[in-house]
Amino acid sequence: MKDNIKVFGSSNTLNQLKCKNSLFLCVIASTKTSNIEGITGAGLTPELTDFTPAADVELVVLGNPKCLPEIPRTVIGGEAAPTPAVITKAALELTDIPFIVVDAGSAVKPNIPYIRINDEPGQDISTGKSVKNAKEIFEKGKLLGKTLSKLTDHIIIGESTPAGTTTALGVLTAMGYDAKSKVSGSMPENPHNLKYKAVFDGLKAAGYEKGDLHHDPIKAVEVVGDPMIPAVAGITMGSSVRVTLAGGTQMTSVCAFIKKLMPNFDFSNICISTTIFVAEDETSDINFISRQIDDITILAVDPEFEKSNNNGLKSYVSGSVKEGVGAGGAMLAALLNGASIDEIRIKTEELCEKIF
Amino acid sequence: MKDNIKVFGSSNTLNQLKCKNSLFLCVIASTKTSNIEGITGAGLTPELTDFTPAADVELVVLGNPKCLPEIPRTVIGGEAAPTPAVITKAALELTDIPFIVVDAGSAVKPNIPYIRINDEPGQDISTGKSVKNAKEIFEKGKLLGKTLSKLTDHIIIGESTPAGTTTALGVLTAMGYDAKSKVSGSMPENPHNLKYKAVFDGLKAAGYEKGDLHHDPIKAVEVVGDPMIPAVAGITMGSSVRVTLAGGTQMTSVCAFIKKLMPNFDFSNICISTTIFVAEDETSDINFISRQIDDITILAVDPEFEKSNNNGLKSYVSGSVKEGVGAGGAMLAALLNGASIDEIRIKTEELCEKIF
Repeated sequence: MKDNIKVFGSSNTLNQLKCKNSLFLCVIASTKTSNIEGITGAGLTPELTDFTPAADVELVVLGNPKCLPEIPRTVIGGEAAPTPAVITKAALELTDIPFIVVDAGSAVKPNIPYIRINDEPGQDISTGKSVKNAKEIFEKGKLLGKTLSKLTDHIIIGESTPAGTTTALGVLTAMGYDAKSKVSGSMPENPHNLKYKAVFDGLKAAGYEKGDLHHDPIKAVEVVGDPMIPAVAGITMGSSVRVTLAGGTQMTSVCAFIKKLMPNFDFSNICISTTIFVAEDETSDINFISRQIDDITILAVDPEFEKSNNNGLKSYVSGSVKEGVGAGGAMLAALLNGASIDEIRIKTEELCEKIF
Repeated sequence: MKDNIKVFGSSNTLNQLKCKNSLFLCVIASTKTSNIEGITGAGLTPELTDFTPAADVELVVLGNPKCLPEIPRTVIGGEAAPTPAVITKAALELTDIPFIVVDAGSAVKPNIPYIRINDEPGQDISTGKSVKNAKEIFEKGKLLGKTLSKLTDHIIIGESTPAGTTTALGVLTAMGYDAKSKVSGSMPENPHNLKYKAVFDGLKAAGYEKGDLHHDPIKAVEVVGDPMIPAVAGITMGSSVRVTLAGGTQMTSVCAFIKKLMPNFDFSNICISTTIFVAEDETSDINFISRQIDDITILAVDPEFEKSNNNGLKSYVSGSVKEGVGAGGAMLAALLNGASIDEIRIKTEELCEKIF
């Protein structure tokens, strides 16, 4: 198992996570930022990115998306890479881990039961007025974390937030972290300039410069963030059990939010779990960002997609998609619960055959 | 403990429920039926009944209702009886049982995290067009029951649905059960004629007579039911763990719905848990209704409110409120988890002092 999990940080983290009953949450959210042409690959067109979070979680629960005729995939050149929701579904089904959706403000709502903590999606961060009610979202997240802690030993939190690395960059930058050209992206060529322009425009429109909001994470989200960030931070801070943040560089913005809200927060109780495609990405640097925040352990899972016969999955190896819907954390949980990486990859391939 | 639980049916049921980890769900829903003058006591005015479900669950989670300046109580003559949400809160807090809200279509939404399975409330059943999408609500309930079964050994389902005994009477009557003058109510004088008139008018408006929908529970709900019924039936049928239906005669309509949808459903896996105020109510007969459906065990808890110094709680003994927000099932779960009936009553009194 260990061969497929690369640990950046405390090697004890894996032992602490073993033998725990896990609950997987997927927090979905949107901002109009994802409608900026070229900023994200999480949808066939900029407009269709509004459907991606709902379609992703419908795919995990129902096996096909109800809200869309097309199944979410990232199209790069001629190759269609399947949504990471397929990996999450495969991993969780192998080990019967419960999957619960939390709406933090998705533009389109999924046609399945979900926990509502916020209705309204965010605006384009270029306006500098992205999220209206970050504090309320955070407080509801805390309540939810408290309740769910009574039902499990370990909460894994994934997300589906199109253009979420741009809003993560926004929050990190507003709070003074150096994340320019370091956030990940869903395409092999990472549009760093486009992302930074949206952040820069948003901060300027609201009358701020980089770092001006270093003591006000709520405001940072309201100006240039997304609703997922305060929701996941709230669930994490409200929880009394172990939490794994399942995502890439977006989860560093959640950690930064927590750190600024509660400087003595104990980061040894949580970790970030992602894929090797994020951890070894040459167009971003999750470790560079997280080191600025605190001692945060990052666990990166390698599903060995280079061994796959499925060209869509193979394209992950060359930088398509990389992560999302908590795929890295779902694989980690499956590995910890006794599945092998080959089983996860084969099950993912089977689902791809069946679904696409 | 046993002295305070009266068993109607299988005496083995209590043993089966012992030592289980429990999860308490409260399903909230509205229909415009509750706006009929005099039909329910679940609110200070007919219009305010729209707020009661949200206020009830906010009270359990936050300690005070956010959506209302006034706290829900049933006013009979000069005496204000506190909402049964206080009993539920007391019982669950004593034993740290998780409380999760499910919206099946409440007119007003609570300002806390909740699981959404349906948005829209029902209409006045007198129109014969109460619930639009009963099948969809049922299917989402099933999905939810399946997921929650992975997190607990025992799901207790309470409800807050103003005028819910009228809509229960509607569904029972439409399916041919004899429930006229047998459903319970929140006031000492049970307005049976008013309830039956609403049901009769609704069936007539839709072109049906009593029993015409004996093979179509979905349609029965759509014509003269409420959204809580298919939601709770769905959660129950989707679940693979023990389920306790925490409520009075409303829960017999859920059982009837299940029986008609799945005639070979094994009712020994579920039970109804209620208060002694419902079980010994002279204005209704829960046993008479349930015997027509199947062998359904009913567990009735006696909180000995006659011993209370709180006049509001004492008025339960003379027929005010009786049950709601799963109070009977919450007390049962607390008793099964080691609390004594005195502890539950004293904690309820303390909460009443603090809240009202």
